[in-house]
Amino acid sequence: MNRMQPRRRTAAVVPDGTYRYQELADFIARLVDRGTLLPGSRVPSLRQISHERGMSLATALQAYRLLEDRGVLEARPQSGYYVARSAHARLEAPAISKTPSTPRTVSLAAAVLRLFENASDPSLVPLGCAVPSPELLAAGRLDRFLARAARDRGVERNTYAPSRGDRALRRALARRAARWGGALSPDDIVLTCGCTEALTLALQAVAQAGDTIAIESPTYFGVLHTLEVLNLRALELPTDPFTGVDPGALEQALRQQSIKACLLSSSLNNPLGCTPADDRKLQLLRILTKHRVPLIEDDIYGDIFFGERRSTPFSALDPAADVIYCSSFSKTVAPGYRIGWMMPGRHMQRVLERKMASTLSGLPLAQDAFADYLASGGYDRHLRRIRGVFRDNIERMSQAISRFFPEGTRVSRPSGGFVLWVELPRRIDTRELFDEALERGICFAPGDVFSATRRYGHCMRLSCGSPWSTRIERALETLGRMARDAPDGRPPR
Amino acid sequence: MNRMQPRRRTAAVVPDGTYRYQELADFIARLVDRGTLLPGSRVPSLRQISHERGMSLATALQAYRLLEDRGVLEARPQSGYYVARSAHARLEAPAISKTPSTPRTVSLAAAVLRLFENASDPSLVPLGCAVPSPELLAAGRLDRFLARAARDRGVERNTYAPSRGDRALRRALARRAARWGGALSPDDIVLTCGCTEALTLALQAVAQAGDTIAIESPTYFGVLHTLEVLNLRALELPTDPFTGVDPGALEQALRQQSIKACLLSSSLNNPLGCTPADDRKLQLLRILTKHRVPLIEDDIYGDIFFGERRSTPFSALDPAADVIYCSSFSKTVAPGYRIGWMMPGRHMQRVLERKMASTLSGLPLAQDAFADYLASGGYDRHLRRIRGVFRDNIERMSQAISRFFPEGTRVSRPSGGFVLWVELPRRIDTRELFDEALERGICFAPGDVFSATRRYGHCMRLSCGSPWSTRIERALETLGRMARDAPDGRPPR
Repeated sequence: MNRMQPRRRTAAVVPDGTYRYQELADFIARLVDRGTLLPGSRVPSLRQISHERGMSLATALQAYRLLEDRGVLEARPQSGYYVARSAHARLEAPAISKTPSTPRTVSLAAAVLRLFENASDPSLVPLGCAVPSPELLAAGRLDRFLARAARDRGVERNTYAPSRGDRALRRALARRAARWGGALSPDDIVLTCGCTEALTLALQAVAQAGDTIAIESPTYFGVLHTLEVLNLRALELPTDPFTGVDPGALEQALRQQSIKACLLSSSLNNPLGCTPADDRKLQLLRILTKHRVPLIEDDIYGDIFFGERRSTPFSALDPAADVIYCSSFSKTVAPGYRIGWMMPGRHMQRVLERKMASTLSGLPLAQDAFADYLASGGYDRHLRRIRGVFRDNIERMSQAISRFFPEGTRVSRPSGGFVLWVELPRRIDTRELFDEALERGICFAPGDVFSATRRYGHCMRLSCGSPWSTRIERALETLGRMARDAPDGRPPR
Repeated sequence: MNRMQPRRRTAAVVPDGTYRYQELADFIARLVDRGTLLPGSRVPSLRQISHERGMSLATALQAYRLLEDRGVLEARPQSGYYVARSAHARLEAPAISKTPSTPRTVSLAAAVLRLFENASDPSLVPLGCAVPSPELLAAGRLDRFLARAARDRGVERNTYAPSRGDRALRRALARRAARWGGALSPDDIVLTCGCTEALTLALQAVAQAGDTIAIESPTYFGVLHTLEVLNLRALELPTDPFTGVDPGALEQALRQQSIKACLLSSSLNNPLGCTPADDRKLQLLRILTKHRVPLIEDDIYGDIFFGERRSTPFSALDPAADVIYCSSFSKTVAPGYRIGWMMPGRHMQRVLERKMASTLSGLPLAQDAFADYLASGGYDRHLRRIRGVFRDNIERMSQAISRFFPEGTRVSRPSGGFVLWVELPRRIDTRELFDEALERGICFAPGDVFSATRRYGHCMRLSCGSPWSTRIERALETLGRMARDAPDGRPPR
């Protein structure tokens, strides 16, 4: 509760661009989520909280009204604000994952390709693919920068980009990284075709066929798929849905077996949405450094945090550690522009060599336009908007799940991003549900592709990346009914 | 000489878009090149040739005047046209390459990266990188299509492309392929990030670390680099600078060792510019089919032929053969757009799976704009123009080499493309020459990166992809002087 100490600030907007009332609302909502403030209990008065947090009464009132709108708080006349009783209906969060202690080869490619092809089918209700809908991304300003670059600089840019990519964009990225403590030169950065190419290059730079990579569990199926294509083995680590990978388990794994690299989310991992605190991250880094194992960090969701501030990437917490940082703008503004980037650290030469055999070069015009877009300052405004939309979507979808899904269902409480991880009762086989849902025009991501051992066969990932609609709400109702009516599936693994 | 049989045609433009006088000029030039028509000898009269070729006297006259302009023929008053004496000054072409009979691992990455980084330095005379200069490519129409797509379709295209890529562009490519006999569906095609990604996906689809791939020798260093990154071994095959890989040598290699795939240029290979005739290609295909070895064909230069017609790719000559076709538009119009494509044939599923771990998706807007550009018909007009420019550049550079380079120099006589392969006397080490040339502001491609065994240490590749200029001519004079003055290098390998 040390965050309730008085803090004096005068600006309405905190440095990362969040409004102060949003910051307070998030803080209170988290206390409710974690059971610190119980349903029906009184929350601190406006006078008290505004004093404690060093803000005006008006700002505190704005925060409480926002929480009232979201159904987290209830106002009682002459009495103040209380935690809503309906918050009681919240489902339990999943427990920390149990994982096998030996590395496994991966064999998911066909299932992943099938999911990807369906997830991009616009006729299906889009709960499958972790990509925000184009309407939400509203990248019209970026498109105008591209149109201008094509008109004005088409001729000079019609060649291969330098091996690291367009310098202006790398400079803009280095400037952004300075906000979360990264002191970078543009030459530390390599542009890639999305985060996918960045992760593949990072893995190729540090590991060879047959090597073992330690990863979160559940983990993004794209990572597992890349391990499969590169003939790498996956060692899944127990992962807590709030705090991430368990340092003790990592330490034990590193003692017991030969692990070539560790691949973790910087924050807001896909599918759990968990964010380790800085001290937890430093603890993980110390363990990896002790065993001389490089970390590949995936920060693709880092800008979509719901809390007070952006989580600091591993590489910025300890610049001396052996870390390859990977990210992209595909989740925040432009999956269609394929703007990924990485900081290979001491692996720069190997990464550049491998990039020459992968894509050789990105599109200079697209990189150029993106540099102009970032320079224009529109990105931060845009981020503030979509964070709010995603947070609302997550809240609405969580509520719909608690209404429609069978008893015993657990759901993640992500601290950002736009996906939910749903654990259904173990008798339910979500692979069977997936086939049936496709027939009914609904796509989701079945749980089995989030583990090399396909252990999450009773889970699913739902994307909240599209504007909320009755179509989506009905699809959740249908999924819930299908889950309740599902015959006993394969035995739990 | 069966091509001198009478052929009646009435159109001034042959089906592939070349003018008939150009076609005739190429034909005569080839007879001179190959020594069929000797310097000083009389060429067929205008009356005779126009009768034999089924064309008007005016067209034949236009062809002979073009050859006169190029210095290939001389007109003698009252006597007719003769092969120019200066044609005698032509340098010998390289002989068929000698190659080791065992596969080799590749270790070129650092040298290739260094070349690539220098080759894209605009301050150097651009003889190093096989990429046409943006002025020559003149892709302004394409840029306007991109600007329009960004304005009109930015929102809907801001998502991942389908796994094969934009359907409209695949349809346009299938229609173009029909011209050279390929009967394709858009679904047979996968769009890639340049030909680089296509070749990498093709190799990943058919081979695993440690496998051996049979290739041309000398071969494009990008292919060797990709083999290195994928941990594949290279078996170099003897390659004739006019007719390509020797079928006997291929047959012998396949009998003697385990070869997982063969990677050949469809035509106009880089760096020799050789084009095997159709029957030679069919012979190679029959050998590969007999040994059940897939062929990966690289057709990236296919549209830049100097002769009468486009060479038919292997895959179109025998649609039943196990061939993966790869190409791109990077050499003809837009290296900056990264539009590559491939036809994986029976390896479609594996290629799509691997593409998901490589780039996941291309840029929908760029693919969209390219489809519009192809539909507009401008590409064929553009090709006719740049073929003429490249042919002239090749001729001028060949002449400059014969003037400036040391005695004993041999130079390729490419049937298309825009690179020349130069064999210097064996005492000269072009790697040393490369370092010295960079200091003098000149970039070329040193020969050692064109072989896994670095056997071409006395050779160089020169690019003719920029408009001819005195700057380029002076650079060639400088290179020639440096080569003449070079101390004895390392012993020949």
